[in-house]
Amino acid sequence: MRHHNYMDLNDLNSTRFGKEANEHVLVLTPLQNDEQYLDHYFELLDKTNYPNHLISIGLLVSDSTDDTLEKLYNTVHRLQNRWRNRFYEIDVYQKDFRLDEKPNDTSLNSRRATLARAKNFLLTAALREHHSWVAWVDVKLHSYPPTIFSDLMLVDGDVVVPNCLLKRQDDEFWGFDRNNWQESDLSLERQQNAAEHEVLMEDYNQYSIGRHLLVDMPTHQGTRIPLDGVGTTFTLVKATVHREGAVFPPFVYQHELDSEGFAKMVKSMGFSVYGIPSYTIYHF
Amino acid sequence: MRHHNYMDLNDLNSTRFGKEANEHVLVLTPLQNDEQYLDHYFELLDKTNYPNHLISIGLLVSDSTDDTLEKLYNTVHRLQNRWRNRFYEIDVYQKDFRLDEKPNDTSLNSRRATLARAKNFLLTAALREHHSWVAWVDVKLHSYPPTIFSDLMLVDGDVVVPNCLLKRQDDEFWGFDRNNWQESDLSLERQQNAAEHEVLMEDYNQYSIGRHLLVDMPTHQGTRIPLDGVGTTFTLVKATVHREGAVFPPFVYQHELDSEGFAKMVKSMGFSVYGIPSYTIYHF
Repeated sequence: MRHHNYMDLNDLNSTRFGKEANEHVLVLTPLQNDEQYLDHYFELLDKTNYPNHLISIGLLVSDSTDDTLEKLYNTVHRLQNRWRNRFYEIDVYQKDFRLDEKPNDTSLNSRRATLARAKNFLLTAALREHHSWVAWVDVKLHSYPPTIFSDLMLVDGDVVVPNCLLKRQDDEFWGFDRNNWQESDLSLERQQNAAEHEVLMEDYNQYSIGRHLLVDMPTHQGTRIPLDGVGTTFTLVKATVHREGAVFPPFVYQHELDSEGFAKMVKSMGFSVYGIPSYTIYHF
Repeated sequence: MRHHNYMDLNDLNSTRFGKEANEHVLVLTPLQNDEQYLDHYFELLDKTNYPNHLISIGLLVSDSTDDTLEKLYNTVHRLQNRWRNRFYEIDVYQKDFRLDEKPNDTSLNSRRATLARAKNFLLTAALREHHSWVAWVDVKLHSYPPTIFSDLMLVDGDVVVPNCLLKRQDDEFWGFDRNNWQESDLSLERQQNAAEHEVLMEDYNQYSIGRHLLVDMPTHQGTRIPLDGVGTTFTLVKATVHREGAVFPPFVYQHELDSEGFAKMVKSMGFSVYGIPSYTIYHF
């Protein structure tokens, strides 16, 4: 048993060359009835060229009625009992947030607030002293480049997102993650006139207030674009951003909730948020 | 080495009878040049009737030029190598936040924002899956009842604070923690008219906007009083409040920063905040 411990966290960095500096990445993914996506999820993570021994994975299973837990148990045991290429650690947490319950309030906001609570819960349970980076990764991703961790680290932002598109059967692609956006004159004006607790999200057409969506930007554009809102299909965060207090607000913050509210907090704290239109990943 | 782990957090409770239910308390204290207070700090914690094996202590040493670290090293080794009554664990983290540096902004707000970052950093570093409660305890406390943890748990609030007074040489006492307060008609009106990013703190006379301070309430009043702002001289928090996303905002939230902003977040999330006028503790 461990009775005391001392750690100097002044040297815990998040640099452009994390792999070369042996920086640990914590991959976080909330799950709910996602049994059929788990194999592919771990396969994609296993195939990245970021060393598995520098990757920790934290999973939160909420409100699941399928065999997500049993499937996880088998998969995690198989992966972590390999002779080689084990991940640094895989932690599975179970906690029900009654995500599908809508007692008095049937609004979308209420579900986003509960999702935010679940993500914060996962973060505080899984974040450890050795983690330099936190990556929020959606369980339903179809594909991303195996170099994604290193590529996004090179961008040198405090929060960085690729452009997440939808993989369709006919090989066309559509925008998927509509939470990655930049404010526009119109959206800023709308916020000026909104009541203090009004939520002004952008992700569905009926809520559109004219922000510039990352998915609508020219995908040959390779430069990093400053964003004001982000989603969590694949979001790389310097650990210090979370450690110093940026969370997913389950309450209204600057007219946003959850991941878009997180981006607003990050910016309020003086940290940077970037998206890369040309860096595309695909969602099922 | 630990490669994987599973934890069901649905059963992690924070009840009125935490001691009887074997609930773990995490005591968190930020330190800066506090060498001379450490012995007394540990003595007070050691004397509580909450079992030491259910108490974890997390300490963050920032920007210290005295022998805080060496003193800690010796004290922690002595306490944790005892045959009996060891604390569950004591973790010491070192991280400099340049608390005394005031580059462009000499305002009090800037220091409070940095203190908030330091506290969030300590929280995310030290919070573990087994903790049911988080207690923020000032290192410079003169005295508190040994039953304090159980007493505050009995109050059955999500966040509970005692009334922190100042111990003077002449045995008179004065109010110390002026961050524990209830909004008044005047203070609410001032906030209605304040610019969005204006901070309206209460703790110093020049900022007074007429809130009802816990230190000014009749100390024979034993009932719990709902509060809208709290300090962190001694603050007991149900762990789920922090886990679900309530932090010490280093940015302006509802015209507050740091612990008062924390109380505002807690209330926005639907959790309760109470103070007990008659439950007095003393600060040096």
